[in-house]
Amino acid sequence: MMKSAFGPNRRVVLGGLAGLLSLRVAGAHGQTGAGDLPPGDPLPSWNDGPAKAAIIELVKSTTDAANPNFVPPEARVATFDQDGTTWVEHPIYTQVIYCLERVPAVVREKPELKEVEPFKTVLSGDRAAIEKLPTDELLKILFATLSGMTVDEFQAQVSAWIATAKHPRWDRLYTELTYQPMLEVMRYLRANGYKTYIVTGGGQDFVRVYSERVYGIPPEQVVGSAGGVTYGYAKDGRPILTKESKLLLNDNNAGKPEGIHLEIGRRPVIAFGNSTGDRQMLEYTKAGDGARAALLVLHDDAEREYAYGPALGLPDTKVGAFTQDLYDEAKKDGWFVISMKRDWKKIFSFD
Amino acid sequence: MMKSAFGPNRRVVLGGLAGLLSLRVAGAHGQTGAGDLPPGDPLPSWNDGPAKAAIIELVKSTTDAANPNFVPPEARVATFDQDGTTWVEHPIYTQVIYCLERVPAVVREKPELKEVEPFKTVLSGDRAAIEKLPTDELLKILFATLSGMTVDEFQAQVSAWIATAKHPRWDRLYTELTYQPMLEVMRYLRANGYKTYIVTGGGQDFVRVYSERVYGIPPEQVVGSAGGVTYGYAKDGRPILTKESKLLLNDNNAGKPEGIHLEIGRRPVIAFGNSTGDRQMLEYTKAGDGARAALLVLHDDAEREYAYGPALGLPDTKVGAFTQDLYDEAKKDGWFVISMKRDWKKIFSFD
Repeated sequence: MMKSAFGPNRRVVLGGLAGLLSLRVAGAHGQTGAGDLPPGDPLPSWNDGPAKAAIIELVKSTTDAANPNFVPPEARVATFDQDGTTWVEHPIYTQVIYCLERVPAVVREKPELKEVEPFKTVLSGDRAAIEKLPTDELLKILFATLSGMTVDEFQAQVSAWIATAKHPRWDRLYTELTYQPMLEVMRYLRANGYKTYIVTGGGQDFVRVYSERVYGIPPEQVVGSAGGVTYGYAKDGRPILTKESKLLLNDNNAGKPEGIHLEIGRRPVIAFGNSTGDRQMLEYTKAGDGARAALLVLHDDAEREYAYGPALGLPDTKVGAFTQDLYDEAKKDGWFVISMKRDWKKIFSFD
Repeated sequence: MMKSAFGPNRRVVLGGLAGLLSLRVAGAHGQTGAGDLPPGDPLPSWNDGPAKAAIIELVKSTTDAANPNFVPPEARVATFDQDGTTWVEHPIYTQVIYCLERVPAVVREKPELKEVEPFKTVLSGDRAAIEKLPTDELLKILFATLSGMTVDEFQAQVSAWIATAKHPRWDRLYTELTYQPMLEVMRYLRANGYKTYIVTGGGQDFVRVYSERVYGIPPEQVVGSAGGVTYGYAKDGRPILTKESKLLLNDNNAGKPEGIHLEIGRRPVIAFGNSTGDRQMLEYTKAGDGARAALLVLHDDAEREYAYGPALGLPDTKVGAFTQDLYDEAKKDGWFVISMKRDWKKIFSFD
């Protein structure tokens, strides 16, 4: 659900971070695992309400062979946006933090960058100055941190970072800041024969590093913005795949149903999002035959998490905007809006 | 295993058929199903020999928790090229026949094309003239038959054709011309926790239409050459995905490991191919840690199927060439060459 700064003709960049360039950057241990379904209420962190009822009704009707809306197991596809839908996206997308925090390592490898902008500013740690970096300068940070290495090197870099980096507000690992109610939905769907997919505007290669451990979703079920890779050979002749800076799939907005077609080839039966970047995925889902469900997480809980819209008069944001227009479409087309404040008993597993 | 006529800078065309343009075009009921594994010999259509032994040894070592080469179930990935590896590709790729045979329907919808080349020549049925069509004219056929429609329309078109079109030599459905020994390998691997994938130079959308029924491989496990799709709305407001003529992934040669990374994100443990277009996929597979296996089908059986190389002095071909250079690399790097003549007791289920 990242908002894209690139039109279709500006496929210049960076798997997963195309959208991030429209932003001015603002500013743990233990895993929220994804094990078996607990007995009893399949969604214990949810308050009773229309959203919870809609999820349970969809699952019941599509898995009952006597129901006209029965869906055979192989077609049970559920898609989840990530940022703002399954984990915290404020004040800024986790992957942007990764890119910024990766800069010192990049400069250690290429010391000549130390005095060169924008690396110099990022190294200074001067947040106000970093926030003022123009888009094309930020682009250089993304290029330098998300391309040029082999896919194995990138995986190791992200893996090391995500194991220790913490969100400043909670002082917890980013992977702990997944939403417990959504983890329950994923487990509930899988227990009912659904295949769960992440369909994210974030980088496919980035999310794949931790998706299995954090969400129980294997790498082959992560669809995300994707840069090209190029097959070649290392000096010792070993085959390698190198990450390139050209964008193959900008998995935002219309790119979400397009990416779903490319990598899954089936229309979702149920889809979850939280922002305008998810609109087309939800439209595409609802347009299928039989029972389909589309749900949007509304961040209306500043106390326990964040509050932003601008729908319903909530504060506006450039990170995961949920516009009034999107809200109106949801109401008109029978999508469900999940109120974090009212629908979720708890937000994080540690609450 | 299609040979590509396009360099990386000529991404102009046509999911799945990029390779076909380098060719001059030369020229069934019941399904080869993919059910459960029969008891006893898991590969009954195979003669004993190094290839059969290699497959069984790989499966045994990677599924035995006490073996140092044990692979956890989620990482058991097996990839299969399609044309020439799992079904007949001579005298010409099935999808090319599809495109040519689709021309009358295209002209019915756009009668103005009737007197326009290359449609006029294709409609004439004059095989010699069709074979002489220049590449850019053939390109128009591919454009007209593989793009411009919605993905649902395309699926219906292929589905109707593949249900009735027959191979002239056997007078059988193309889907009956799958290789029984390879269907057994797929079943054997799946019975041992492997996820089986098609990784084809052919069109991803084309193969997905029948892959589940014919190979037991669901659409989300088909990686192939893929054109872009564009999300939009029909006149009635319904969301649609329209097939475009721009090529996103040319899934041949280096494009195979690149496509595997894009759509699977895991390195295969075992991979099967039959031509130079599979070379990089097999290299990439073998370069992984632990036990890995790479196998190439050699078409050396003119009596029961076809004989072509040019490896080992077999007749040369532009359709699925297995060069001496590829053969030498296979021998040097410990890949296995499957002789259709010696290794396969039967080729088709109806033999």
